[in-house]
Amino acid sequence: MTQPSPPAQPSRGPTDHEVRAQIVDAATEYFTRYGYEKTTVSDLAKEIGFSKAYIYKFFDSKQAIGEVICANRLAAINAAVNEAVAEVSSATEKFRRFFKTLVASGSQLFFQDRKLYDIAAVAAATPWPSVRGYEERIRQLLSDILRQGRETGEFERKTPLDETVNAIFLVMKPYFNPLQLQYNLDSAEEATTQLASLVLRSLSP
Amino acid sequence: MTQPSPPAQPSRGPTDHEVRAQIVDAATEYFTRYGYEKTTVSDLAKEIGFSKAYIYKFFDSKQAIGEVICANRLAAINAAVNEAVAEVSSATEKFRRFFKTLVASGSQLFFQDRKLYDIAAVAAATPWPSVRGYEERIRQLLSDILRQGRETGEFERKTPLDETVNAIFLVMKPYFNPLQLQYNLDSAEEATTQLASLVLRSLSP
Repeated sequence: MTQPSPPAQPSRGPTDHEVRAQIVDAATEYFTRYGYEKTTVSDLAKEIGFSKAYIYKFFDSKQAIGEVICANRLAAINAAVNEAVAEVSSATEKFRRFFKTLVASGSQLFFQDRKLYDIAAVAAATPWPSVRGYEERIRQLLSDILRQGRETGEFERKTPLDETVNAIFLVMKPYFNPLQLQYNLDSAEEATTQLASLVLRSLSP
Repeated sequence: MTQPSPPAQPSRGPTDHEVRAQIVDAATEYFTRYGYEKTTVSDLAKEIGFSKAYIYKFFDSKQAIGEVICANRLAAINAAVNEAVAEVSSATEKFRRFFKTLVASGSQLFFQDRKLYDIAAVAAATPWPSVRGYEERIRQLLSDILRQGRETGEFERKTPLDETVNAIFLVMKPYFNPLQLQYNLDSAEEATTQLASLVLRSLSP
């Protein structure tokens, strides 16, 4: 005997997940146009045609919506980086791709929509959990690449791995942290190429 | 026959140089208390007891006064750095001292007087000529240390000197540029130690 399948619910309305996505999409568009700082939950509610109370059923605060937008953007950067790194095999080349793609997709995602930079700035200043997770993933990928390079003999093995990871993370940070990247945007591409070469010289066995 | 010496002028009043210094001193104090951005030349004039027109005889604008204050501070940092570097002989040790002193005296001078940071921020964002000169001196000292290290065999000689100077300058910049240093203050001391070690590894022959 098979369990009866649940009846189709064509008219039950959107799921919670769908409403959340709808709010996030509308908020992304609204913040892009008017900026994150200046927008209130009331503004958003009016724009979507929901009541403020209904939005609060799904998100505790404006920041909670901003967090999701920010996490989405960071996940997109992360995906681009992973893809770029997977395309090449040597640790040296992986590191160059990593740094280059991180900065290129970071600048594009945060700064093409100048108004969305608001969110990135607030997120990086606090920092929000999504930003801490993002930095953790950067540190992890860096550590993986270094470990690989040490195994293949491309990189030196004398310096403690933690120290190397941390120092390189510090070299890269001004170019992936949005608060600092805003001062380095013009020269970011050339700068990161030169910095990558310096880092690789520091790693030579 | 000797030229008659000019008559003493005990009552001729302060020289232009003295008046300028008096205005700069008063402005430094005033900006420290109320911030650079919010202060007008009228505020300053009232505080010193001069007419606004009299101040304009000596300085074209508020920025011209800010420029002198900024240049004074940068000269103090520069003096501290030169002194620290002169105390040691190896290029390796000179580089460590250079970076450490630059960051320590920079943080102290810009951030101990939180309100004066205003000036540093405006100066670094434009940037003002004094800031360009400051960066030029940093680049020059870096180049001198690298040249010495290459001559003594402490540092590698394969990479073009210009490229090495520029890449190291970029590593250091987030820690001496006030706009970026504000985000790195807490960790500046530890970070610069680790970054100096990374740079020195990249320089090893």
